[in-house]
Amino acid sequence: MNELFVDYIIFAKKERMESLKQRRTIRKYQQKDISADLLNDLLETSFRASTVGNMQVYSVIVTRDAERKAKLAPAHFNQPMVRTAPVVLTFCIDLRRFSKWCEQRKAEPGYNNFEWFVTGAVDTLLVAQTFCVAAEEKGLGICYLGTTTYNPQMIVEALELPELVFPITTVTVGWPAEQPEQVDRLPLEAIVHEEVYHDYTPQDIDRLYAYKESLPENKQFILENNKETLAQVFTDVRYTKKDSEAMSENLWKIMKKQGF
Amino acid sequence: MNELFVDYIIFAKKERMESLKQRRTIRKYQQKDISADLLNDLLETSFRASTVGNMQVYSVIVTRDAERKAKLAPAHFNQPMVRTAPVVLTFCIDLRRFSKWCEQRKAEPGYNNFEWFVTGAVDTLLVAQTFCVAAEEKGLGICYLGTTTYNPQMIVEALELPELVFPITTVTVGWPAEQPEQVDRLPLEAIVHEEVYHDYTPQDIDRLYAYKESLPENKQFILENNKETLAQVFTDVRYTKKDSEAMSENLWKIMKKQGF
Repeated sequence: MNELFVDYIIFAKKERMESLKQRRTIRKYQQKDISADLLNDLLETSFRASTVGNMQVYSVIVTRDAERKAKLAPAHFNQPMVRTAPVVLTFCIDLRRFSKWCEQRKAEPGYNNFEWFVTGAVDTLLVAQTFCVAAEEKGLGICYLGTTTYNPQMIVEALELPELVFPITTVTVGWPAEQPEQVDRLPLEAIVHEEVYHDYTPQDIDRLYAYKESLPENKQFILENNKETLAQVFTDVRYTKKDSEAMSENLWKIMKKQGF
Repeated sequence: MNELFVDYIIFAKKERMESLKQRRTIRKYQQKDISADLLNDLLETSFRASTVGNMQVYSVIVTRDAERKAKLAPAHFNQPMVRTAPVVLTFCIDLRRFSKWCEQRKAEPGYNNFEWFVTGAVDTLLVAQTFCVAAEEKGLGICYLGTTTYNPQMIVEALELPELVFPITTVTVGWPAEQPEQVDRLPLEAIVHEEVYHDYTPQDIDRLYAYKESLPENKQFILENNKETLAQVFTDVRYTKKDSEAMSENLWKIMKKQGF
């Protein structure tokens, strides 16, 4: 083996973890399609994620059609990615297929309840994230839309989701047309607890958020929103108590309406 | 570049997707520790997953201590992996740290509700799955414990989880001491819907589940459980309506108790 080859092996092994570490969300896409073969390969790969009792209680709705994207867009507060990404994937909890199978096999399903809503959410999100990791390894860019649980009824209608199917997250996918800066994260010690949960003292909070608060873009964010602290931008502008209480009620209502 | 080198590049690129495709859950581990450096590197990598508003509303509890594992084990129906894995990770929705930060910054948090329970679950599960992908790339084996949402109160107590913190999934991690067969998955067409949800006809269900039902291990499973169909093994033995209704009530109660 020559040196170049050995170097490459070391590089290739490193590169995998690096691609996870260097990732960033992509919101601007080239006007270039994703082939059905590639998309199906990525989806099939994602279905290898762990799943409760090998039940695979999820479905994925693929949106490519411009008209359908236009129907979906308002549910996502018209974030431009819904219309500009070549592919929009809505990842749904799906207890319907499994329940239908049970009913056809002289078995009484009992999956129309909160426990299975949550268990289904776990299954579905492991698939969504595996898809994203695989897609990014292929050079695609992705963006999660947290808006999925804000207006679920609009998504239910746009995608014709029947009972026991519920949209839990949405991912827009495409070939990157931007290379944004990587955003900050809290230090490891902010998130990881050894053996038991170690509650945060006021000093801990100050220390753990100091870097985030020191960033020029976050200081700019406070100014633009005419606030005193960065936290107030979250509580008063981006994610207010009033909005999230209304969304909670709505989410619960639509969850019930979908049969859970 | 020599031919060997070019082959290796092609192999290395292929291998990445392959490792996701070839993965299997590992329940038996070598008696060999995972170094703190490696574990922290994997966790830090996982925190690069997408997160709502870059809020990182999750915490991870690392269990290595045998006594603590013994406390956790009953919550997981004493599945042996909890005691035999060198590391058990409990991935928790955490709105506490963020809310504390808000309160210390003259901001009124509004995250003690169902919307943020679900949004927090999304954040947390993307991290959990990124961790698992990264761990498997390093040669580790993982197993998800779906039991996490069955007895959340026992986990809350074992790990001393305060208000606004909720255990949503658990992963056992270790160096593999087994190489099990890969389990089946439903065909792609069972899961993926183009543009809108295409409901399943009885013929669809028969076709999509035919392979699963044909497997000798599943036929064996029916015999062992003294049932007529594979679906009955799920509905009558593994995941009964009665159990999941009791668990739903309990899950809801503990979610409320934890302040959501």
